[in-house]
Amino acid sequence: MDSSVPRRVHLDNGGRAPWHPLAREAFLQALDDGWADPRRLHAEGRRAARLLDGAREAVAAVLGARTEEVRFTHSHTAALHRAVQAGAAGRRRAGSGIVVGASERAAVLHAADAAGERVTVGVDRFGRADADAFGAALARPGVALAALQHANGEVGTRQPVEQVHEAARAAGVPLLVDAGASLGHAHVAGTWDLLAADPADWGGPAGIGVLAARGRVRLADDGPEDPEPWAPGGVSVPLAFAAAVALESVQSDLAAAGARRRQLVDRIRAAVTEVPDVEVVGDPDSRLPHVVTFSFLYVDGEALVTELDRQGFAVGSGSACTASTLEPSHVLAAMGVLTHGNVRIALDRGTSPEDVERFLAVLPAAVGRVREALGVQGL
Amino acid sequence: MDSSVPRRVHLDNGGRAPWHPLAREAFLQALDDGWADPRRLHAEGRRAARLLDGAREAVAAVLGARTEEVRFTHSHTAALHRAVQAGAAGRRRAGSGIVVGASERAAVLHAADAAGERVTVGVDRFGRADADAFGAALARPGVALAALQHANGEVGTRQPVEQVHEAARAAGVPLLVDAGASLGHAHVAGTWDLLAADPADWGGPAGIGVLAARGRVRLADDGPEDPEPWAPGGVSVPLAFAAAVALESVQSDLAAAGARRRQLVDRIRAAVTEVPDVEVVGDPDSRLPHVVTFSFLYVDGEALVTELDRQGFAVGSGSACTASTLEPSHVLAAMGVLTHGNVRIALDRGTSPEDVERFLAVLPAAVGRVREALGVQGL
Repeated sequence: MDSSVPRRVHLDNGGRAPWHPLAREAFLQALDDGWADPRRLHAEGRRAARLLDGAREAVAAVLGARTEEVRFTHSHTAALHRAVQAGAAGRRRAGSGIVVGASERAAVLHAADAAGERVTVGVDRFGRADADAFGAALARPGVALAALQHANGEVGTRQPVEQVHEAARAAGVPLLVDAGASLGHAHVAGTWDLLAADPADWGGPAGIGVLAARGRVRLADDGPEDPEPWAPGGVSVPLAFAAAVALESVQSDLAAAGARRRQLVDRIRAAVTEVPDVEVVGDPDSRLPHVVTFSFLYVDGEALVTELDRQGFAVGSGSACTASTLEPSHVLAAMGVLTHGNVRIALDRGTSPEDVERFLAVLPAAVGRVREALGVQGL
Repeated sequence: MDSSVPRRVHLDNGGRAPWHPLAREAFLQALDDGWADPRRLHAEGRRAARLLDGAREAVAAVLGARTEEVRFTHSHTAALHRAVQAGAAGRRRAGSGIVVGASERAAVLHAADAAGERVTVGVDRFGRADADAFGAALARPGVALAALQHANGEVGTRQPVEQVHEAARAAGVPLLVDAGASLGHAHVAGTWDLLAADPADWGGPAGIGVLAARGRVRLADDGPEDPEPWAPGGVSVPLAFAAAVALESVQSDLAAAGARRRQLVDRIRAAVTEVPDVEVVGDPDSRLPHVVTFSFLYVDGEALVTELDRQGFAVGSGSACTASTLEPSHVLAAMGVLTHGNVRIALDRGTSPEDVERFLAVLPAAVGRVREALGVQGL
């Protein structure tokens, strides 16, 4: 490679990352063996069905679930929609309340609004829901479902899922755990009744999601006419297989990859505070190993993303779940921190210390240029 | 290859077929260039967005539509659901009636039931809706939407889409044309307001669908919170790109591939009538070039599929859209023909005359064995 053209550094690996090399291999294998419709009775169909079941089994093993408790959906968002809708409808007799954390993904908040009465539990300055407050809210009469993310993908803060699940069990309320930002990066305990996860977040494909439901959870069917209401028309078997293979692979290296990236995140957290008027957000300790987020005063997030992109660095900004619009993040707003001038770094397993140092070397000047363009002087 | 082990012949290429070789190539290229989230602002995101737009443009060119009128969904079924739901909701002021043909896919019938008042126009013995009756039904007051398939994927019969579209235009009612079994196999005219199509049917991937809506059609949004209500969470860009490349490729050979397969279908139609107690269904002339369907008296469809599978031939049976369940097909029932003992052949572009002759050579004995097992004597 021409050394005068430094390679691009992609630091926006939350939600979408380059495919794990084994995912690519698995996809091509499954394309040869699993292109047919798994619902058909002939040999080609049965072979596709076996691949799909194998993929479910592999994901179930990681989750500590039974194979038949794991389904593939068309996306993580679709899994969240379906979990909230079918989970709430299946408990209609208990009531219509759906208790959620204020920093859940937009997909959960909106699905809760559509499926029942949303009861939102606030989060602290780190973005963490209070376990006691959450437990008290879900123990009130008329609650059908509760939803709490394993960790927040936008700022990295882990949620008190174990404690909340205990409270949910005591109250007899099923708990949906959104592991979309966690699975493949951190250990996810079995303290859930429903779980959603995102293959594209762990180096698997987009266009496929994971929805797990314990056998004890009653889900309402959309109707007997749709054999797969969680994925109308069925999923791509090769995508599902690639997702499972990627998950198995990243799980085998979870602790080491976590430690490696945690060090880099610590380095970033320390270095960015040297830029004037910056706020590093999220819990400094109880957090995902690969995500770090900070906000700059007097900076427009979109302009900063563009400036860093010009310098060869891809970063995220705005609300991680509605990144297109760059609307002020509802997560940052709920935390009571700066909602503009926001940068989210999500490190890939392959991000090197050199990548990080190069990024830190250009960041202060990039922020300065954006501030200058906005007419902010003397910074 | 060991000549004692004849190669398998896959004759169930409706809805899912082996990927076109160019789709595979296109997928791998798009995986390198288009793994990122097309909604992101950085170079990787913009590159993915360009690939996705290129895919939309290619499909739009085939459909005679504008690029912005074409969207990718998570499946053909999802495209039908969304078209009916958003199309009907967007015309709520006109009324709640949704006029459909009796041989539409289950996804259309059920979506119509959920979105409004379904008005079903019967079909004749070939499975064809009467254009005048359909036009009269949609011209009545209170009709929000009409839906008619381009051709029936289960029996091959083409529908009078042009005439019905004329009536729909005169009545000011948008017409959804389900081209799921046609696009990639037959010319689909521009006589539609909404159109759904199925990449997996033309040698593209499963897990992706096409929804086109003319600019003049008003679709109801699910809500401002979801930037892509037709595909919550977004689609796989590489799948979309592979679907578009496969479509371009099959379109370039449409007439020749159609003529070739039509000859083979004619040969099958003539030959199967030599089996006792058989009924060949669907219009003999105005039909898809690659689909042929017949039903045997005194035969269980599932048993026949299994017997033919054992002989090396994969065929479809039952309702093509809910093939898993092998419930009696609502299409065959609406046509007033035999609903059991049904075999559907959908020829691939690569199906050879030799494949067909081998199939025809084993079919009579396979039917005989199934009848024998059921205790039907002397046939």
